[in-house]
Amino acid sequence: MHRTTIKVVEDALDANTTLAKANRSDFDRSGVTVVNLMSAPGAGKTTLLTKVLGDMKGVRVGVLEGDVQGSLDADRLAHLHLPVVQIQTDNGFGGECHLDANMVRSALPDLPLDDIDLLIIENVGNLVCPAEFKVGEDIRIMVSSVTEGEDKPAKYPLMFRACEMVIVNKIDLLPYLDYDLDKFNYYLDGVHPEVPRMFVSAKTGEGMEELRDYLVGLATRTAAPATT
Amino acid sequence: MHRTTIKVVEDALDANTTLAKANRSDFDRSGVTVVNLMSAPGAGKTTLLTKVLGDMKGVRVGVLEGDVQGSLDADRLAHLHLPVVQIQTDNGFGGECHLDANMVRSALPDLPLDDIDLLIIENVGNLVCPAEFKVGEDIRIMVSSVTEGEDKPAKYPLMFRACEMVIVNKIDLLPYLDYDLDKFNYYLDGVHPEVPRMFVSAKTGEGMEELRDYLVGLATRTAAPATT
Repeated sequence: MHRTTIKVVEDALDANTTLAKANRSDFDRSGVTVVNLMSAPGAGKTTLLTKVLGDMKGVRVGVLEGDVQGSLDADRLAHLHLPVVQIQTDNGFGGECHLDANMVRSALPDLPLDDIDLLIIENVGNLVCPAEFKVGEDIRIMVSSVTEGEDKPAKYPLMFRACEMVIVNKIDLLPYLDYDLDKFNYYLDGVHPEVPRMFVSAKTGEGMEELRDYLVGLATRTAAPATT
Repeated sequence: MHRTTIKVVEDALDANTTLAKANRSDFDRSGVTVVNLMSAPGAGKTTLLTKVLGDMKGVRVGVLEGDVQGSLDADRLAHLHLPVVQIQTDNGFGGECHLDANMVRSALPDLPLDDIDLLIIENVGNLVCPAEFKVGEDIRIMVSSVTEGEDKPAKYPLMFRACEMVIVNKIDLLPYLDYDLDKFNYYLDGVHPEVPRMFVSAKTGEGMEELRDYLVGLATRTAAPATT
């Protein structure tokens, strides 16, 4: 009589995790550092990219744009002469509100992975679901605009927890808003204490040098990835 | 020999539609007009409500707040002394990014439907999925902040299509933004021509009287509901 061993392979049940790991292997093989860039709609992700990707100090960058529909964001990056691939999530009624590992995987053949050092995946603007779907990235960066109000970490805690860097954008508008930076930091510390944060303005250029250095550091591994 | 008739009951397969209709019946029975208020995170839905619900010219209002977590929005409405019920969608990993008819239904016992004329359901901040889930409402109002950029109707078309009114908020910030109102109207006309739109600022009060009159009109049925 022999015993039956039942092995529960939990991860195998989760197709997204399996596919994220497959993406991860491909990225590792090509030596590509991958950033998953997330935010609410209109927080300024694409504008930030147009400001910093023009001169990345020798780091070769590719961009994967996720949108429900259209290619407006990819078009805005066209002048940078980088490899940019657009994924449209609108494959059904209304479209998906996030990128998942399979969508990213479907775009990999169109990306010259061996010729880039850093891949930036601009996720669909949404403060809930993108945080639930890993796509094979090294680092998740969360962009939060001051125009959204300081309470967002408390209202969308997973999103602010599931990231290694928080970029607070549009600080040029602070004089015109009732926005309390201390309160934002308090709420953010409540869900993700000690996560690094940068306060920037793509419009005035404030903090752009710091952001560029951070991204360059990620790609050249001279800067340690932020804590998970 | 008799023939078998197969009747395909399409709607019955869609639990959300069935439950939305059940909600609708309850609202009708109590004579309540229901508004589904949708926007991206931080567009200012709650602030708009705090500005207009204080004096609704005799219309009795209730509010149903949808959030992933917490009760910040409900707390902000507390001083208005209205019936406010908070739904938290965080019943799983990360939480749901929208309200559905079942969540709204679960809140109905806590709402004094017979004692209100207008129920405002403030949806989770998200520009994709809320548009896909009817909850039994009469009218869907979409709030778009100018700080999000003028391209949002083109990027999130279903959301701007699945509404009967678009409120463009935070227009007090226009002098400090590179925001082209004509372009916004152009994009909006592209996905939803002739949808009525209001340009307002909860901060300065501009357009608040108009918005209040619109909501009062919906509840008293003196104003025809906007086109669907």
